Amino acid sequence: MKNHNKYSQVNHIKVNNGQTVEELLSEFRSSGVFGPGRIAEAIEVFTEMLQNKATVFLGIAGALVPGGMRKVLVDLIRNDMVNVIVSTGANVTHDLIEAFGGRHIHKVPYTSDAELREKSIDRIYDAFVSDESFMKLEDGLQPIFQEIWDERSENKQLSLTTYKLLEIIGSKISDKDSFVLAAYEKKIPIFVPAFSDSILGLQLWLFSQTHKVFIDVMGDLSKIQQIASDSDKAGTFFLGGGVPKNYIFQSRLMSPKTYEYAIQITMDRVETGGLSGASLEEAISWGKTSGKSKMVTVVSDITIALPLIFAGTLANMQRDE
Amino acid sequence: MKNHNKYSQVNHIKVNNGQTVEELLSEFRSSGVFGPGRIAEAIEVFTEMLQNKATVFLGIAGALVPGGMRKVLVDLIRNDMVNVIVSTGANVTHDLIEAFGGRHIHKVPYTSDAELREKSIDRIYDAFVSDESFMKLEDGLQPIFQEIWDERSENKQLSLTTYKLLEIIGSKISDKDSFVLAAYEKKIPIFVPAFSDSILGLQLWLFSQTHKVFIDVMGDLSKIQQIASDSDKAGTFFLGGGVPKNYIFQSRLMSPKTYEYAIQITMDRVETGGLSGASLEEAISWGKTSGKSKMVTVVSDITIALPLIFAGTLANMQRDE
Amino acid sequence: MKNHNKYSQVNHIKVNNGQTVEELLSEFRSSGVFGPGRIAEAIEVFTEMLQNKATVFLGIAGALVPGGMRKVLVDLIRNDMVNVIVSTGANVTHDLIEAFGGRHIHKVPYTSDAELREKSIDRIYDAFVSDESFMKLEDGLQPIFQEIWDERSENKQLSLTTYKLLEIIGSKISDKDSFVLAAYEKKIPIFVPAFSDSILGLQLWLFSQTHKVFIDVMGDLSKIQQIASDSDKAGTFFLGGGVPKNYIFQSRLMSPKTYEYAIQITMDRVETGGLSGASLEEAISWGKTSGKSKMVTVVSDITIALPLIFAGTLANMQRDE
Amino acid sequence: MKNHNKYSQVNHIKVNNGQTVEELLSEFRSSGVFGPGRIAEAIEVFTEMLQNKATVFLGIAGALVPGGMRKVLVDLIRNDMVNVIVSTGANVTHDLIEAFGGRHIHKVPYTSDAELREKSIDRIYDAFVSDESFMKLEDGLQPIFQEIWDERSENKQLSLTTYKLLEIIGSKISDKDSFVLAAYEKKIPIFVPAFSDSILGLQLWLFSQTHKVFIDVMGDLSKIQQIASDSDKAGTFFLGGGVPKNYIFQSRLMSPKTYEYAIQITMDRVETGGLSGASLEEAISWGKTSGKSKMVTVVSDITIALPLIFAGTLANMQRDE
Repeated sequence: MKNHNKYSQVNHIKVNNGQTVEELLSEFRSSGVFGPGRIAEAIEVFTEMLQNKATVFLGIAGALVPGGMRKVLVDLIRNDMVNVIVSTGANVTHDLIEAFGGRHIHKVPYTSDAELREKSIDRIYDAFVSDESFMKLEDGLQPIFQEIWDERSENKQLSLTTYKLLEIIGSKISDKDSFVLAAYEKKIPIFVPAFSDSILGLQLWLFSQTHKVFIDVMGDLSKIQQIASDSDKAGTFFLGGGVPKNYIFQSRLMSPKTYEYAIQITMDRVETGGLSGASLEEAISWGKTSGKSKMVTVVSDITIALPLIFAGTLANMQRDE
Repeated sequence: MKNHNKYSQVNHIKVNNGQTVEELLSEFRSSGVFGPGRIAEAIEVFTEMLQNKATVFLGIAGALVPGGMRKVLVDLIRNDMVNVIVSTGANVTHDLIEAFGGRHIHKVPYTSDAELREKSIDRIYDAFVSDESFMKLEDGLQPIFQEIWDERSENKQLSLTTYKLLEIIGSKISDKDSFVLAAYEKKIPIFVPAFSDSILGLQLWLFSQTHKVFIDVMGDLSKIQQIASDSDKAGTFFLGGGVPKNYIFQSRLMSPKTYEYAIQITMDRVETGGLSGASLEEAISWGKTSGKSKMVTVVSDITIALPLIFAGTLANMQRDE
Repeated sequence: MKNHNKYSQVNHIKVNNGQTVEELLSEFRSSGVFGPGRIAEAIEVFTEMLQNKATVFLGIAGALVPGGMRKVLVDLIRNDMVNVIVSTGANVTHDLIEAFGGRHIHKVPYTSDAELREKSIDRIYDAFVSDESFMKLEDGLQPIFQEIWDERSENKQLSLTTYKLLEIIGSKISDKDSFVLAAYEKKIPIFVPAFSDSILGLQLWLFSQTHKVFIDVMGDLSKIQQIASDSDKAGTFFLGGGVPKNYIFQSRLMSPKTYEYAIQITMDRVETGGLSGASLEEAISWGKTSGKSKMVTVVSDITIALPLIFAGTLANMQRDE
Repeated sequence: MKNHNKYSQVNHIKVNNGQTVEELLSEFRSSGVFGPGRIAEAIEVFTEMLQNKATVFLGIAGALVPGGMRKVLVDLIRNDMVNVIVSTGANVTHDLIEAFGGRHIHKVPYTSDAELREKSIDRIYDAFVSDESFMKLEDGLQPIFQEIWDERSENKQLSLTTYKLLEIIGSKISDKDSFVLAAYEKKIPIFVPAFSDSILGLQLWLFSQTHKVFIDVMGDLSKIQQIASDSDKAGTFFLGGGVPKNYIFQSRLMSPKTYEYAIQITMDRVETGGLSGASLEEAISWGKTSGKSKMVTVVSDITIALPLIFAGTLANMQRDE
């Protein structure tokens, strides 16, 4: 039998009253296994990604804004931890709902979804949003669309990439807790490849009934591929899978480079073959990442793991300064 | 204690040698619980949807074509069990790969994904596709894009909805096992809301580097909402979640009508709040379905449950004729 | 670029009206990927296990009897496809409930679990069982315990292994659809390592309040290890995880031999570290299986996958005869 | 449209550098949805359970000790937050491995499980334990079994309940980080209903080859039912499912009382019908809990959620003092 003393020990996590999050995450790191181990590893990979000036591509899927993650998204941006965002239309929609005075609510008692419908309340698992909030979105967006039209239409046409449209919208709102505003201020592009697949997209479609408006999907592709190609080093931080994960991965597919870093938080499974749950190792076979890339998958509700990973990385980065 | 004899019994599933799939599904129905119960219910709802002439919206997400579902998709179309398709770009991409002579392969031995990369083989869990197959896609698609350009560009510009583009592509291929061809033949529109998020999208982007090509995203929205609005009764059949699920659901959001029927097969969980795993009941609160809608969620690998649900519904429909 | 023609193709699953289950499973095999590929592989491994006369250890966890799997379990036994059973107490309990005239019911309408409680109906997801059925279990079991006492107690004491107790119970019941009876008839031992963790255990505890009854846990261990040790070749078929999976795996741990074959059907995840969801590969490191063992994990609701795997293996075995 | 201002807002989680865990959990509470909402609710329910002097039944399943949770278990005991423990044999086994000088290790590089077998290292997902550590367990346990035999056997026989056996073992070890020792010191019984289903059980079986030793399974049932019956109020805290969850639930089944509080952390799904993933609401129909019970399910890797729930509850309890 070999001597196994060379291997490091699983140190059991010690919780103390008054402990800081940073101290608890240090316990997670010295445990090093299962979920806490993966969270600690994600913090390490994210920190190295930032220290090595990799271009960070953040993918946002799932109900993150209704799920209370809006400030974390803003702080990721404000602390220079993100360079490019690819989002579902829904997360931008829900960010703007709050920017225009709408709200996400909780602890709404109900006995059936039909009862909620009667009360004009829409349910997202145990978060809720009223039809009234969607009206505020409409009331906020339509005048902005008109302004953009007035400023930018040519020959009675307006064609915009999604990142440009969101940059302009960002410039016209004032809610400091909006990640669309924060991204505008930090000059970080937000791409929404499935723009039409959201209330935001439906709002633009409404506007398009009276104005010739086009979404320049190909322009988005040119821009993100340019960024990916210009990036010496690049890393991904996938909050969920879906379109954002694939779109980010494919953006470096046409270049000889791969993503040197990749982090994903997901509850999707690997065995069904879908990309959302696919392992990051699989991406090596496609040339999206390489055998030398540093990669970590955290299997968790994003809304639990993301605040912890952000907190740990923030502490690392501020300690370095 | 009350008398419970009025309730029907869980009849245990009996498997016989030589049994037909239809007979086994009849056993599933008389068991009536857990997975088999849900599959039997999905068959009932799908059958009723068809018998009542509801417009059937099929959502296709996940790796269904690499996962061996191509013929089932074709047969759903050829047997008039689908009226509208909303797909990820990937499923169309993989359908066309085969249409142009490429192949999906399996049982490829490998010790690491880096080894696969060296061999130019891309992995999708335990299915594989070679770079060579992607080249066949390129060789097949680019001339078609040129043909379309020659036939349809105006003022050196070409703007197409995704459903129109796929209809034209369908008209120009000959592989009888292609669902893109089958949809063209049956005049069934295929919408790909996140068109740019796929190799198909990247191929069009390549073409767009030398030709002014646009994807008319808003035109897609107009068309699908028109269909949804024109449909007296409508039902959804979601194979996975993602963009197709949301896009189909939102297409009836602007009309006073809801989906009278809804079926989904998914492995995603409800607790994370993401739409992919969301319950169909939740859709009632949004007015996408109603308290009177017939709905069933099958928690299963789609590639296991879909052939069974299709087989059972086909048997029901052919018996009726 | 290498030539990849040597690799076999993913043949898309073809569903036909009138198709037998065996024909559909043949389609699953020629697809070969994702869930259908795993089911086909499980059939192959199970068939080889039987053809090579391996001792088959069946682990039964989860709500299989309430879930309609009772006849499949009986037929696995009657067709000589199982040699040893390790079960949760619950599955034996629910088998005996039906043997004594109780029933599992479904499609019980209810608005809350509190309403079910008032009606004396117990819920198991969407299967149900009434308190009345549990009374039939009590009325059936207690006289049998008394008979066993009368026949076998010595010095006013009775000590029994669980496999012996279930053998005797099997000999005293007459419901041909009972797997406890089928196992008795085929001389197949049923071990219930967590006997006290079930209504069956509570019933024996009730009897033990007036009779000195002991469960000979160590005798069970001796017996199963003897069987495992006497088996030249051995294989596992795990329906779910829990105690049965671990107990079967550990039974060959003290011998130099490993399990040459291993199949598991489970929905549990690998990432939490728990044994229920653990990969079969992990078992190699423990010496429970070896690098040469044939192993397959099917990620599925057991009640969907088991009838298919049984059907395919039965067809293979009867074709061989 | 109704006025929805009466409903409370989802406050987005704010992460700050230097933040304490308690402060972050306060953010979780004011978000109130998805995973963070469930964690905050679990803390509330656990706190109320303790403040109202409910008897707390802790269920321990899954690989918690290899997963770094040993100190949290100890601190739950030392801070009087637990009154009864029901554990898998494995968690006691791994606690004792460390008590006798063995170790759990991590970051072991390996290319295959067969390589680990050659190195005599056993894998538990990404935690590891060497055969050497199991030998330390054997070297520690066998003399203790002999001591117990010498002290307690009568008529050359020894019969012990599992809680008594573990109490005695607890009294004979000195590792202050052992939860078996902590439970002994706090006079908290540890029940292991599937004792024989573990290395601990196999070690006793080895000893039983030369000594007539019995596990008094019925005595365990008497004791836990007595405790459950004597408890005015009672609550459960399930770390995973399996035998511990069922055994705790059934212990109050024979009394007219139900569990007033119930918390579970699990990744198992509800749809398969198995008890491990079953909702706590389902328990109402069985009379294990009632419609008035306070219940919360946290869907998470236990090793992530448990330290957070413990930290929050500890802070609440120490603030109260």
